[in-house]
Amino acid sequence: MEGIGAGSIIRRTNEGHECVTDEVAIEEPLEIRIRSRAVATTMRTPGHDEELAAGFLLSEAIIQTRADLRTLSVAKENVITVELAATVEFSPAPVERFGTITSSCGLCGKSSIEFIRQQFPLIDFSNDPTRIGESILLSLSDRLRNAQGNFARTGGIHAAGIFDTNGDPLVIREDIGRHNAVDKAIGRAFLDSLLPLNRHVLVVSGRPSFEIVQKALAAGIPIVAAVSAPSSLAINFARECGQTLIGFLRPPTFNVYSHIERVAFD
Amino acid sequence: MEGIGAGSIIRRTNEGHECVTDEVAIEEPLEIRIRSRAVATTMRTPGHDEELAAGFLLSEAIIQTRADLRTLSVAKENVITVELAATVEFSPAPVERFGTITSSCGLCGKSSIEFIRQQFPLIDFSNDPTRIGESILLSLSDRLRNAQGNFARTGGIHAAGIFDTNGDPLVIREDIGRHNAVDKAIGRAFLDSLLPLNRHVLVVSGRPSFEIVQKALAAGIPIVAAVSAPSSLAINFARECGQTLIGFLRPPTFNVYSHIERVAFD
Repeated sequence: MEGIGAGSIIRRTNEGHECVTDEVAIEEPLEIRIRSRAVATTMRTPGHDEELAAGFLLSEAIIQTRADLRTLSVAKENVITVELAATVEFSPAPVERFGTITSSCGLCGKSSIEFIRQQFPLIDFSNDPTRIGESILLSLSDRLRNAQGNFARTGGIHAAGIFDTNGDPLVIREDIGRHNAVDKAIGRAFLDSLLPLNRHVLVVSGRPSFEIVQKALAAGIPIVAAVSAPSSLAINFARECGQTLIGFLRPPTFNVYSHIERVAFD
Repeated sequence: MEGIGAGSIIRRTNEGHECVTDEVAIEEPLEIRIRSRAVATTMRTPGHDEELAAGFLLSEAIIQTRADLRTLSVAKENVITVELAATVEFSPAPVERFGTITSSCGLCGKSSIEFIRQQFPLIDFSNDPTRIGESILLSLSDRLRNAQGNFARTGGIHAAGIFDTNGDPLVIREDIGRHNAVDKAIGRAFLDSLLPLNRHVLVVSGRPSFEIVQKALAAGIPIVAAVSAPSSLAINFARECGQTLIGFLRPPTFNVYSHIERVAFD
């Protein structure tokens, strides 16, 4: 299966030792080129590379609308070429912000802190009827996990899912890197011209770091729910940007770190 | 306590809702300056910043010996200034490889794949008597966890520990980022002129990614043991560089991915 590699290892069990074929998550570089220039290299699990590139460009505020992106093409293995619309401004200066991005990182290569916080529209509270019921919210971690084939087999794959407020999935993607899984999910929605996802919830299998919350904002997603603990920066960002941030989503409990107004009590 | 912040949140429990004061891991930028120039910004949990900077410079192969590093000084909040020995070559070119590094990333800002794999001496098998007994190996995850105060309280802090082959700790550090915790641990040993740590084991609380294995190599550590799953790149790197890589260290079991010759059977 794509994204999974196998090799022989020695397993120490309760009874003794056994030689077994083990499956691990593949981690390979993907180089993203814009206007013939390499602008970023990300360590990712192969598969859905067009979605990954689209989500990355959206998160970096290089593209905003579907029309900004003309084509994505796989030039050769592990290289993807992006054609932007002629109207999109993209100077060499921002290129220098990027570099190689590892599988665990979504903010690499920025040359100073000011670049980290991209400028995206905040959630518009005057026009925000999005609410999610507690029982549906509690069901989302299981719904995400049930869609994860790879995770169960290797224990090393993160998942990101976009669900509507009825709990129905729009898209679910996996990657060795949390931020890549999110880029693939929002990239799919972007390519299908579904943004802003202002009636949706982003669910992630791991920790919701600052960059995960920011990527949700780039896609207009007002609610982020995660299985693990958020960082202080993620919490402050969600509070400032009007996003509801849920952590430790482990039925029958969860924590609400910001904007509880979108959680409907049963 | 340093590295931990508090705020009011709403917790949904089995019985209902409660407003509680929650503690979260702090995530703040640290800018590293060399020769008056900002060369990297890393998102880290504050504390042990000198060790973090030393471990980072070692991992990036900017410094190799204790004499290469003259002083580390905290210029102002979240900025650390490095003075290298006059003999250390450090041109602006490699500087451009760095940028902002997130709390989950140890390889950011490299402008091409070739830069990723630093050149460190491989483990010398002809002169490598390091062995670890299975029962000591199995005890290391508990020994690491027992030293972790923050982790238990927030669920969002990674730990890295360097142990000798008797299971005695040399140094244990925590950070919101796995790679930062490793940088702090090897940075402490570097500052104390203890390298190479060729009779030691690096134990990490999370996934052993490629960069974690590489940082161990930079410190001369022949054995890396982790609680979670390694990536394909981490496994290949360890096999090539002569390191023993242990994953899923969860008593009573573990997996050996490379160089089992250093694991002594009970």
